[in-house]
Amino acid sequence: MCGRAAVVTLRAMKSRYLERIPDVPPSWPAPVRKTTLAASDDRRTRGVRALSAITGDAGEAVVESLRNIAPDLAEWIIDFSYGDVMSRPGLDLRSRQFATIAALTALGNAQPQLKVHIAGALNVGCEPQEIIEVILQMAVYAGFPAAINSLNVAREVFKSR
Amino acid sequence: MCGRAAVVTLRAMKSRYLERIPDVPPSWPAPVRKTTLAASDDRRTRGVRALSAITGDAGEAVVESLRNIAPDLAEWIIDFSYGDVMSRPGLDLRSRQFATIAALTALGNAQPQLKVHIAGALNVGCEPQEIIEVILQMAVYAGFPAAINSLNVAREVFKSR
Amino acid sequence: MCGRAAVVTLRAMKSRYLERIPDVPPSWPAPVRKTTLAASDDRRTRGVRALSAITGDAGEAVVESLRNIAPDLAEWIIDFSYGDVMSRPGLDLRSRQFATIAALTALGNAQPQLKVHIAGALNVGCEPQEIIEVILQMAVYAGFPAAINSLNVAREVFKSR
Amino acid sequence: MCGRAAVVTLRAMKSRYLERIPDVPPSWPAPVRKTTLAASDDRRTRGVRALSAITGDAGEAVVESLRNIAPDLAEWIIDFSYGDVMSRPGLDLRSRQFATIAALTALGNAQPQLKVHIAGALNVGCEPQEIIEVILQMAVYAGFPAAINSLNVAREVFKSR
Amino acid sequence: MCGRAAVVTLRAMKSRYLERIPDVPPSWPAPVRKTTLAASDDRRTRGVRALSAITGDAGEAVVESLRNIAPDLAEWIIDFSYGDVMSRPGLDLRSRQFATIAALTALGNAQPQLKVHIAGALNVGCEPQEIIEVILQMAVYAGFPAAINSLNVAREVFKSR
Amino acid sequence: MCGRAAVVTLRAMKSRYLERIPDVPPSWPAPVRKTTLAASDDRRTRGVRALSAITGDAGEAVVESLRNIAPDLAEWIIDFSYGDVMSRPGLDLRSRQFATIAALTALGNAQPQLKVHIAGALNVGCEPQEIIEVILQMAVYAGFPAAINSLNVAREVFKSR
Repeated sequence: MCGRAAVVTLRAMKSRYLERIPDVPPSWPAPVRKTTLAASDDRRTRGVRALSAITGDAGEAVVESLRNIAPDLAEWIIDFSYGDVMSRPGLDLRSRQFATIAALTALGNAQPQLKVHIAGALNVGCEPQEIIEVILQMAVYAGFPAAINSLNVAREVFKSR
Repeated sequence: MCGRAAVVTLRAMKSRYLERIPDVPPSWPAPVRKTTLAASDDRRTRGVRALSAITGDAGEAVVESLRNIAPDLAEWIIDFSYGDVMSRPGLDLRSRQFATIAALTALGNAQPQLKVHIAGALNVGCEPQEIIEVILQMAVYAGFPAAINSLNVAREVFKSR
Repeated sequence: MCGRAAVVTLRAMKSRYLERIPDVPPSWPAPVRKTTLAASDDRRTRGVRALSAITGDAGEAVVESLRNIAPDLAEWIIDFSYGDVMSRPGLDLRSRQFATIAALTALGNAQPQLKVHIAGALNVGCEPQEIIEVILQMAVYAGFPAAINSLNVAREVFKSR
Repeated sequence: MCGRAAVVTLRAMKSRYLERIPDVPPSWPAPVRKTTLAASDDRRTRGVRALSAITGDAGEAVVESLRNIAPDLAEWIIDFSYGDVMSRPGLDLRSRQFATIAALTALGNAQPQLKVHIAGALNVGCEPQEIIEVILQMAVYAGFPAAINSLNVAREVFKSR
Repeated sequence: MCGRAAVVTLRAMKSRYLERIPDVPPSWPAPVRKTTLAASDDRRTRGVRALSAITGDAGEAVVESLRNIAPDLAEWIIDFSYGDVMSRPGLDLRSRQFATIAALTALGNAQPQLKVHIAGALNVGCEPQEIIEVILQMAVYAGFPAAINSLNVAREVFKSR
Repeated sequence: MCGRAAVVTLRAMKSRYLERIPDVPPSWPAPVRKTTLAASDDRRTRGVRALSAITGDAGEAVVESLRNIAPDLAEWIIDFSYGDVMSRPGLDLRSRQFATIAALTALGNAQPQLKVHIAGALNVGCEPQEIIEVILQMAVYAGFPAAINSLNVAREVFKSR
């Protein structure tokens, strides 16, 4: 597509980069409160790692689902969104998830992504009540319908875990 | 208006409540990182205190400016937005400001409020670089124009302090 | 949650307040054209009454559904949205519903609330054709897709009654 | 442009149609509460009349300003927006202006049009307090920033009259 | 409805206008790349033709579905949206579809219309990869969630043909 | 900032890459209709070239203005927005600008970017009337206020050249 070599799957990407960068410890721990991701590696490695840390299998599924229609978007999600942006050291992952949940609640038109990022907030150590607080606060800044609809997504995510 | 007594000014509100509630220490300190506001008082007291802690004089100016056209909105801002919502103990004030900045950046149509809340983030202990990180992250979730326009507001706020 | 006593159900709220405020006539009539709600009672009473008058059982169901995840949002809907705002005497309930339907159609991302408020418009005496007129007018101000999608919600509401 | 004859000015449109349609009384009165516009004439006549009734000189200025860049848009505003939509008999002009103000407040990105339509609401008999009520209500449905920014536009319009 | 005669079905409209305007060749060809539609006929004829050329049966189904609730909106779609706007000669139909897909992707709240217009883009000669390019580009201007959700609609349309 | 080396200016970027990549002809011509940009170079080179081709000095000014507050955003604009996305060969630059103008008109909250991209459309060979057509079409998809406000930006750009 577009004169580029075929994109390998994310699983292949992971092993490829884990091979190339042996200093990624196999025991790399689950994300904990206040962690930021190391910024020392190349974009792909950082991206795969951040995507996995934040979204777990959900982000990987999104990336895989894009392979047959827009493999470059799949790469941009990994390399740009997670490798360049979400991996930056200047803000902890918990705050990043609060910001994402606030924005997606305010926009109100991206419920699949909101679902992934509420789960992602739990993955990086946010408490359910903190997530609810962010959503409730949006009643002030984006109106009650935005907050109510987003809370319904949160309830669904909390129940599924 | 609407069968209600005239709204007193915010300055009057403050002194009235500070008088009525002697346990508000006169030396109530400037907000520090991770502070949440006490939830024990009545809505008005909590609201005046949270509005002042987060927005400093800017929020007071907004409230004052509404007195002649919609005094009840001025009261809702204090009692509901700040007294009920922003004073809740479940999330620290720094995270609340990150969430507000993210939402207003994503919406892209509320630059006066964005200005107040970027200053508010500084007031509650957010670092300029952290605020920039939240805004940069919105390039992913709401597009580059949203991030660029919000950064320009942030630059203006940072310069003015 | 958040150091507050558990929220009682809306049904309990209603009876509690109806008991406490005996001057609410048991025969309080169904809303009629041009009615505004009395502004003399406390926030909770006004809110319960306005929520019931406008949304009937639908609003009560929304409030109930929030009890297990965000009981304070349930209270804010009653006390602030309906008790403070929708009960204000300065504008008739029919006009309020037209305004809400216009806004939700223009935003285009709050179909559950749009459904509740189209039904609410019928509850306070709006004619189906008037509701359609408001939605059609949004083709001018928010574009044809907004109007078409909102009309499909209206059709569904009209059919169900 | 587009194979069409040059668009004449709105003033010319008016006189042309007033000439062609002698049953338009020269003493056609200022709009009053609850008026709807007659639907019996052709689109252009209805449009010119509704544009004038609702927006006064402001709408005419908008139409004139479009003549040199997009004369067809000027015609669509008259023929479609005002001739087809705003002239429809199914809803009174006051309610139409409430709906427009609600939508433009919720969208939050169309302040020039909001200004025209707040003035338009006054032109068709809405009270300033009713306009304020519609805007305040948007705090619930679209958030406080939307309501505050719109109120500032309303204050400006009220002052200028 | 609204004092107007009942709207005939689109099928009737088509035959009526095909009868009335004999210079519409029965062999009027399927749209090809770069075609613009002739601007010489009346609004209804141009609208029916453009609606059919761009949306095929899908647009007709939308128009038919509106007959029972808002027949005038059905007419506006044909006469204004397709007869006045989409039929204009100043821009080719392929570019028009790119613009529509870009806008609906950015708005993110009109998936039924997006579906119709992605199919419409294929109908007027856009390549699937070109449609994907427009959607991917929206990741820059409206954020990744907008692009991802729109790509999922595109995949569905591509699969169904 | 953020542990990364200081960003050099765009002018320096350009000369650096022009030096490093000698096969970029010094006589690289002004963009013409239907041109797509070569996809063979690295991200930075492609980005600098596309940014220059589309936005001329305006994009460079935006990038420069970000240097002191968010140098990484400046790099992302070049490397991601222009190097990865806008340089892709699957869609011609004219169509890309139509798509951007449509999206920014529909969003209605990014007038500085709209200004840059209307000028950019002229830079890559779009006719003023084609740009107007895209904007007029948005009256259908995003409402008349969006189209009118965007036309006013277009007028300003056309006048300044």
